[in-house]
Amino acid sequence: MATKMMPLLSVLLPIAIAILLSATGVTVANTASAQSHPHPLDSLSAAELTAASAAVHASPFVKARPITIHYVGLNEPEKADVLSYASNPASSSTTLPRHALVIARAGGESHELRVDVTDISAPSVLSDSVHRGAGFPAFTVEEQAAAGALPPTYAPFVESVRRRGLNLSEVGCGVFSKGWFGGEEEARWHGARVAKMQCFVLGGTANFYARPLAGVTLVVDIDRMAVVGYRDRVVQPVPKAEGTEYRADKVGPPFAGPSVAPGVVVQPEGKGFRMDGHVVRWANWEFHVGFDMRAGTVISLATVHDADSGLRRRVLYRGFVSEVFVPYMDPAEEWYFRTFMDAGDYNLGISAFPLQPGGDCPANAAYLDAYYANQDGEPVKVDNVICVFERYAGDVAWRHTEAALANQIITEVRPDVTLVVRMVASTGNYDYILDWEFKTTGTIKFVASLTGILAMQATSYTHTDKIKEDAHGTLVAENTLGIYHDHFITCHLDLDVDGTNNSFVKNSLTPMRNTRDPATGGADTPRRSYWTVRREVAENESDGQVKLNGAPRELLFVNPSKRTKIGNEVGYRLLPGGATATSLLDDDDYPQQRASYTKKQVWVTPYNRSEKWVSGLYAEQGTGNDNLAAWSKKNRRIKDEDIVLWYTLGLHHVPCQEDFPVMPSLSGAFELRPFNFFQSNQLIRTRPPGH
Amino acid sequence: MATKMMPLLSVLLPIAIAILLSATGVTVANTASAQSHPHPLDSLSAAELTAASAAVHASPFVKARPITIHYVGLNEPEKADVLSYASNPASSSTTLPRHALVIARAGGESHELRVDVTDISAPSVLSDSVHRGAGFPAFTVEEQAAAGALPPTYAPFVESVRRRGLNLSEVGCGVFSKGWFGGEEEARWHGARVAKMQCFVLGGTANFYARPLAGVTLVVDIDRMAVVGYRDRVVQPVPKAEGTEYRADKVGPPFAGPSVAPGVVVQPEGKGFRMDGHVVRWANWEFHVGFDMRAGTVISLATVHDADSGLRRRVLYRGFVSEVFVPYMDPAEEWYFRTFMDAGDYNLGISAFPLQPGGDCPANAAYLDAYYANQDGEPVKVDNVICVFERYAGDVAWRHTEAALANQIITEVRPDVTLVVRMVASTGNYDYILDWEFKTTGTIKFVASLTGILAMQATSYTHTDKIKEDAHGTLVAENTLGIYHDHFITCHLDLDVDGTNNSFVKNSLTPMRNTRDPATGGADTPRRSYWTVRREVAENESDGQVKLNGAPRELLFVNPSKRTKIGNEVGYRLLPGGATATSLLDDDDYPQQRASYTKKQVWVTPYNRSEKWVSGLYAEQGTGNDNLAAWSKKNRRIKDEDIVLWYTLGLHHVPCQEDFPVMPSLSGAFELRPFNFFQSNQLIRTRPPGH
Repeated sequence: MATKMMPLLSVLLPIAIAILLSATGVTVANTASAQSHPHPLDSLSAAELTAASAAVHASPFVKARPITIHYVGLNEPEKADVLSYASNPASSSTTLPRHALVIARAGGESHELRVDVTDISAPSVLSDSVHRGAGFPAFTVEEQAAAGALPPTYAPFVESVRRRGLNLSEVGCGVFSKGWFGGEEEARWHGARVAKMQCFVLGGTANFYARPLAGVTLVVDIDRMAVVGYRDRVVQPVPKAEGTEYRADKVGPPFAGPSVAPGVVVQPEGKGFRMDGHVVRWANWEFHVGFDMRAGTVISLATVHDADSGLRRRVLYRGFVSEVFVPYMDPAEEWYFRTFMDAGDYNLGISAFPLQPGGDCPANAAYLDAYYANQDGEPVKVDNVICVFERYAGDVAWRHTEAALANQIITEVRPDVTLVVRMVASTGNYDYILDWEFKTTGTIKFVASLTGILAMQATSYTHTDKIKEDAHGTLVAENTLGIYHDHFITCHLDLDVDGTNNSFVKNSLTPMRNTRDPATGGADTPRRSYWTVRREVAENESDGQVKLNGAPRELLFVNPSKRTKIGNEVGYRLLPGGATATSLLDDDDYPQQRASYTKKQVWVTPYNRSEKWVSGLYAEQGTGNDNLAAWSKKNRRIKDEDIVLWYTLGLHHVPCQEDFPVMPSLSGAFELRPFNFFQSNQLIRTRPPGH
Repeated sequence: MATKMMPLLSVLLPIAIAILLSATGVTVANTASAQSHPHPLDSLSAAELTAASAAVHASPFVKARPITIHYVGLNEPEKADVLSYASNPASSSTTLPRHALVIARAGGESHELRVDVTDISAPSVLSDSVHRGAGFPAFTVEEQAAAGALPPTYAPFVESVRRRGLNLSEVGCGVFSKGWFGGEEEARWHGARVAKMQCFVLGGTANFYARPLAGVTLVVDIDRMAVVGYRDRVVQPVPKAEGTEYRADKVGPPFAGPSVAPGVVVQPEGKGFRMDGHVVRWANWEFHVGFDMRAGTVISLATVHDADSGLRRRVLYRGFVSEVFVPYMDPAEEWYFRTFMDAGDYNLGISAFPLQPGGDCPANAAYLDAYYANQDGEPVKVDNVICVFERYAGDVAWRHTEAALANQIITEVRPDVTLVVRMVASTGNYDYILDWEFKTTGTIKFVASLTGILAMQATSYTHTDKIKEDAHGTLVAENTLGIYHDHFITCHLDLDVDGTNNSFVKNSLTPMRNTRDPATGGADTPRRSYWTVRREVAENESDGQVKLNGAPRELLFVNPSKRTKIGNEVGYRLLPGGATATSLLDDDDYPQQRASYTKKQVWVTPYNRSEKWVSGLYAEQGTGNDNLAAWSKKNRRIKDEDIVLWYTLGLHHVPCQEDFPVMPSLSGAFELRPFNFFQSNQLIRTRPPGH
């Protein structure tokens, strides 16, 4: 969290990357095999990616060369058209057009092109606009590789390495996004697309981040691919390799840690879900799984079957991780700028690698592949990037034991089985396990589990006794500080609870005093207090922003035009599940301006086609002028509108020694749980186990 | 939450109960088979329960008859003796004496007797004290059955039933603890052990709580077993039986709800844990599982193996659920007193019934039986009351993908397997699934999942449109309100982090301003703010009380005399996981006085042998004068002492239609997670899956 590290002395040109990755499930695809597109939300196929890129290269709009492709993704059809399709896919007489959004840099400009790839043999650029505002698209993999080759060609760096008694061959450097720090820095670098590089000592370990080459910072102009700034500020001991390894064949045998019995989930009747293309059907759920090179997994058109009405009912039009903001808490030269936007700076989808069967996902999982475009516009295939599995965790969906009836004790139980859609984004040192979990109760749960490797700082300290000032972190090993930091994972959730127009309701649990006087609504009993529910419907965006600070409140998304038979508004409840930290940075601090939405966990906005990226479309070095908080200043109406929930999971991370050399998973979650959506518990009329 | 319901017309005398329960895994035990006691914390055996009761009956201390046994439990040996035993069980030359604590009522008094049952053929009462303060022991099962027989013998009640057009045979009543509401009520009932009774219409459903006979309240003197008060205040329609059933053979086939594929966890090499008596050994964990008729599961002497030092290290001396406080939020005559102390009023252990294999616990679970004493002191055996299983939930313990190294992409993963110890307490309408989960990382997680049946109120409303005033609940079905309420589940956690004496550390994450001046600790960078950690060690109990209100804070339990090699204090971190509600009742309200500890989630006290029950030893009609908050007024020292954490999970519950007729599980949890306890992640040197 977050940088793609590239080894210094193996310049990974695209072709080399292709060769390398082919052994690992990541391959430049053969585009000859065209695919059919049964679903308008299917991610772009290899052929479509190729066609989009070809159209951009052939377009008169982009004259400068070279052209670097930074993003190619599905430019989704209008929501109304998709909903129309989804309501009756079989009878859709015409397929919706297939459009790609391409962000490309050429001649120092960021182009945003919309390309029609409906006919892959004749793709056409529909529009081009040049981005004039702040910020840049994410770094490409190839840019990071190329930047990795610069330091050894830069004499002052060579001298720094020699001065430390190291060989150039032992050192690797990575591209670190530099954040945005106002006019002073913009002037210094003339507003160029610059990144910082930090270096590490290789050898003796696969743990790239455990042995920082402290004190050295390079500044690289990524467009020009040249070193434009350099500082060697301080020398620190290089932490030792011993104890940093994590690969099984290096740490054992013998294996000294706790071992557990192998176990595997067996499904005697096979999997319980079907995948028709990218549409998943399981129990009462149906939804579409897409892949976007920036967001990773995209869940769309999630509908749930209602056993009472026999109808499928809409819940979530679209859900995806929009950004992961990770600021570190050391103001020093080599650390102050580490305020990563992991999606905007590096792309979460590209940071996802093939999942390891039996490790990342259980034996009963199915896998999906995905494609993204490299900087030349070639499609790159990633095998097994998403897994789907039924989770038999030993939980109980509902139960009751009744001992009050004559001559019997009744125990009725339904074990819980859920469906998980998982992707893991490895954004440099950190790994984010991102789960969308569907429950037969109608609940959608999002779980983010953080693991991977800490961002570490080399230090002269080998014992805490010697630390006299604020070290900005925990000494997690000799000569190694794990620096304090935060994670803010923001989900974009376009809720369509039983229809498009919804309202956001804040139910406050309000203490009441019992007056003992029936005339004033009191009861003539000695009870003195109780609580009741005060309902507030959010009118505008400013009402839709909530900081969860332990206040007793229930947050609902209701469809004001739909009610249950007995009159309750149908709705879903947002249920936070830990990980509710908000940013502690000052409002005037630059990273906080960029991520100004991180001081409240909940924002609600009216649906707007262009508002997908909470940190802005151009988040890399963005200023925050196109982020969620900026949009919401318009204070638009959100009552009985098509609304979008933005929920930010937050974790403050004070590292500890157990987080070294790889940290155990730490999870945060939230649930969207039906609340008067159904007439009653949907699982009552289900089969008990073994029947 | 909370009442044992007993059918009106089948008076369940103890013998009848024995016959009934024998078919259901709950049986009066044959005490002929004596057991050996290898462990001083083993729960009392059937023979010991019998011996304790016999001694009480034979004791000159208790002269009045009849004697009603309300509680028999292990009177644990001194902690120092247990620790001494545990440190080297093999060489313990003498076994520790076996003592029982018996709470019995006779002649209107509550006796507290300590009985030596080391020699079960010659048990002896060591001491007797008569409780003079407020409160009573829990109701016995037999008392509740006997009370259930009273209403049809009480003419006004017979008239009320007739007036409603019902037959007596259709009606069942349950004993509802009446809470404590100050001197006014005490005077009214002359300080007697009274309970209220509420009645329900039987027939057409196994859902006892779905069809309340509204408006009728009986007051019963439980010691005299006589009706002493009666009110028929209001008549409401009886909700219909249709839609309230939950038994599979009644709701289907056909089964209309979502069905999932059957799946089962298979362990080809067998279970990974061993049980030697009640000591469980699994992976790096070892702990003792006990059973107490009030608390249910008791986890003791939890130690974790340290792969670095090769030593077993102490973590938790004892953990159990101390109380479940459930206040309802309707001040009306029939509801104001519903402020249940589920453990203190009804006993959680006795409320636990045989678990259903494959439903309550997965196929790979092992089961434990338990014994408790009935009111005659006879041992009652409950089969399969606790299950232990390895949980293969598809989670990831840790992982990392490294793409920065030359010519390879490394993915290293360890799937997570945990060990769960589960009991379910069905306290009347509600079911609490209570899990102690052990992780190989060293974490202990406690999870409470709430399911079962809402407490419902009959109402004339059939549609929300007609509701004009505060209904104190949600209309969950026609004529049925689910009343607002809370659940506060308090765990007693005697932490012994790497030794007996620990300190409680509150680490506040504190915003800092970067001065840009190195002389004042600033960095000359444009970063304006960051956070750091301010440490505060709690000196006395008043410092140990924490209300979690979203403040950025990390709570640690450290051993101030133990440090890691690099100098960090060894510790465990308390990590809340949702369900952090606190009570909203006014401080002067009676139920709040009894549960005054529920306004803060965290309390820390010095270990005191007698302080086990957070709501007081005599919680039934207790006043709060012997609760956690009362003890803590002494403001004792807790720094570098043997300390106990009391953590309260809190949930406000606004019911919804999905909670009807049985509610889907809703979970709250917290973790005790090692924090600089180990030198590093214990799972690094473990085998990957399939190796």
